[in-house]
Amino acid sequence: MSGPRRIAVLGSTGSIGTQALDVIRQLPERFAVDSLAGGRNHGLLAQQIAEFRPRAASWQGAASADLEAAVRSTGCRFAPVEDLALASDIPLIATAGAAGLFPTLAALKAGMPVAIANKEVLVMAGNVVQKALREHGGRLHPVDSEHSAIWQCLWGEEDHGIRRILLTASGGAFRDFDADSLAVVTAEQALNHPTWNMGPKITVDSASLMNKGMETIEAMWLFDVPMEKVEVVLHRESIVHSLVEFSDGSVKAQMGVPDMRLPIQLALAYPERMPTPPMPSLDLAAAGSLSFGRPDMERFPCLRLAIEAGRRGGTFPCAMAAADEVAVGRFLDGEVGFLDIPRVIEAVLEKHDGIADPDIETILEVDLQARDKARAVKPGVPV
Amino acid sequence: MSGPRRIAVLGSTGSIGTQALDVIRQLPERFAVDSLAGGRNHGLLAQQIAEFRPRAASWQGAASADLEAAVRSTGCRFAPVEDLALASDIPLIATAGAAGLFPTLAALKAGMPVAIANKEVLVMAGNVVQKALREHGGRLHPVDSEHSAIWQCLWGEEDHGIRRILLTASGGAFRDFDADSLAVVTAEQALNHPTWNMGPKITVDSASLMNKGMETIEAMWLFDVPMEKVEVVLHRESIVHSLVEFSDGSVKAQMGVPDMRLPIQLALAYPERMPTPPMPSLDLAAAGSLSFGRPDMERFPCLRLAIEAGRRGGTFPCAMAAADEVAVGRFLDGEVGFLDIPRVIEAVLEKHDGIADPDIETILEVDLQARDKARAVKPGVPV
Repeated sequence: MSGPRRIAVLGSTGSIGTQALDVIRQLPERFAVDSLAGGRNHGLLAQQIAEFRPRAASWQGAASADLEAAVRSTGCRFAPVEDLALASDIPLIATAGAAGLFPTLAALKAGMPVAIANKEVLVMAGNVVQKALREHGGRLHPVDSEHSAIWQCLWGEEDHGIRRILLTASGGAFRDFDADSLAVVTAEQALNHPTWNMGPKITVDSASLMNKGMETIEAMWLFDVPMEKVEVVLHRESIVHSLVEFSDGSVKAQMGVPDMRLPIQLALAYPERMPTPPMPSLDLAAAGSLSFGRPDMERFPCLRLAIEAGRRGGTFPCAMAAADEVAVGRFLDGEVGFLDIPRVIEAVLEKHDGIADPDIETILEVDLQARDKARAVKPGVPV
Repeated sequence: MSGPRRIAVLGSTGSIGTQALDVIRQLPERFAVDSLAGGRNHGLLAQQIAEFRPRAASWQGAASADLEAAVRSTGCRFAPVEDLALASDIPLIATAGAAGLFPTLAALKAGMPVAIANKEVLVMAGNVVQKALREHGGRLHPVDSEHSAIWQCLWGEEDHGIRRILLTASGGAFRDFDADSLAVVTAEQALNHPTWNMGPKITVDSASLMNKGMETIEAMWLFDVPMEKVEVVLHRESIVHSLVEFSDGSVKAQMGVPDMRLPIQLALAYPERMPTPPMPSLDLAAAGSLSFGRPDMERFPCLRLAIEAGRRGGTFPCAMAAADEVAVGRFLDGEVGFLDIPRVIEAVLEKHDGIADPDIETILEVDLQARDKARAVKPGVPV
């Protein structure tokens, strides 16, 4: 490469975004921030603009005074996220929700590589994304530790059949809770994830195993396998990030010290691996043992709902993700209980008329409708 | 490929050889036996010749009556092992001891791929083998489950630096014995290996961890890393066959149900993976947990001796392997105790004048001398 890779960090004020900036900060000869997109956290975005002096930036709402000052003093220009993605060497899609969809598609249609940390893009619109990949030759570099693991296991195995993808799951904050305890857990308890430090929505999804369910759908699209070949394995230690079984029964696993900077770095630097900043070595002997088990879909119905939605395909995963976002919001607001999250989702999916191979307009329409329905569901009351 | 790959199975009557014939038997459209080389087990070789009807064969000593009959009735011709290797598409070197050296070098010097199951070839003559690889463009396909695992982990990672190779060790039959118990174990006890079914010499080496020590030396040569980057990890379940840590801290592991047919098949079929015969899937949840620990080099000094010999290089590994073969023979004959095996080896190595970058003649000379010395060592009596 001639110069540093110019990156559009979309979702720069979130958990993945700030860790990505940390990676970029430590490898100035390899990476440079071309642009930043924050949401409504204008204060943090202003600081990031002052530090990284991006060429352009994007945000939501009227700029706060400090954001305006940062933009003015650095000569940074406002631009829509699609433009930010297209002007970079590689965009990192680390926005939450549907906001990641348009810059992802814009970059893929331009045949670009895209580092993807956003779940909803593939869950809502996996068929549209896959079509763009097939027609324009772009590439997705997964950032999620599980999908990064699978991606790494598949390097050099392009001509070999996948027998199974084994997605590991830590089990979330409530893995050892019984059904009675799950019924009364609070938002605060849910936000206490054992291993990874993430935003509130994804942490609740992690506790309900909906996050893992969505990852099964992402894996389907990213690695082009049917849901029947995707299996979830409980693995408390979060050391084995995921595994692939090949046609001959050989299994490859990727593992390491849990640190999101590794998959972020790899998604940005691919096909290179960066020895700096030095990541700690995995000490297996000190870890002592790695445990594996089967997830309990009775106690955690969100996982079952996601796998079913993935199997049914079409707009089902989109409706499910939308209903989940609303249900989790209602749980975080203390309006419904933890076990009402799957109830709300199931109520929405039961009434959903699926549409096969939907286009973007249909997907966004289904997303809005499912949100409305999810807001209206009264847990315990038939819809 | 136009027709089946024609294989020279050298060491066809041993443990790996018979399992290789099982693989070949089940994939007649992909593999064919071009030639067989047995040792002194003429009865079994005669049966194999009758079944596989090889073009040529090799054996040691005057042919038994049934071997002569099999050769005559199938039209099979006797030929030296080097000729068998060169006439095949790929030789499988599954002979024990120095017997594997010449056919391996002959094939590599012809730029051929070689499936290598023999330990001594690389332990004794790693430098000579590596020189042949560099100069003639041949390839080694490792058959040992550990080295096959490392090999698989390195596919697609050719441009990435290796930080560490982690060789897993089941710990052998005596992994939980204390020093007093180790002093009085019998050959019969040593031959009861927990997971793999192998020949007597390698099973004793497995119990003493000399086998693992030799594997560290093989790994150095096969993957071109210094001994400092090779680490042994105790792993009782023999499910993780070995691991590689890359420059960025990412670790890849290869695992599977312990079945030697998988690495044998892969070494013969590379770059393909064969879905038939169907190997059982690894059930991690049923396995429950995988344990890891550090090997105890105090209780198992053979591992330390091998690592030291590998570090010192030159003719030290050759002298060590020769001394070990004699010491194990003396143990199997009931002549010396289990803990005398490392004592015999250490006594030989203490007197050894190492020669750097030895040629084949020097290596064979050192091998003979070390055997003589190892026969003469009286454990407990200073040399």
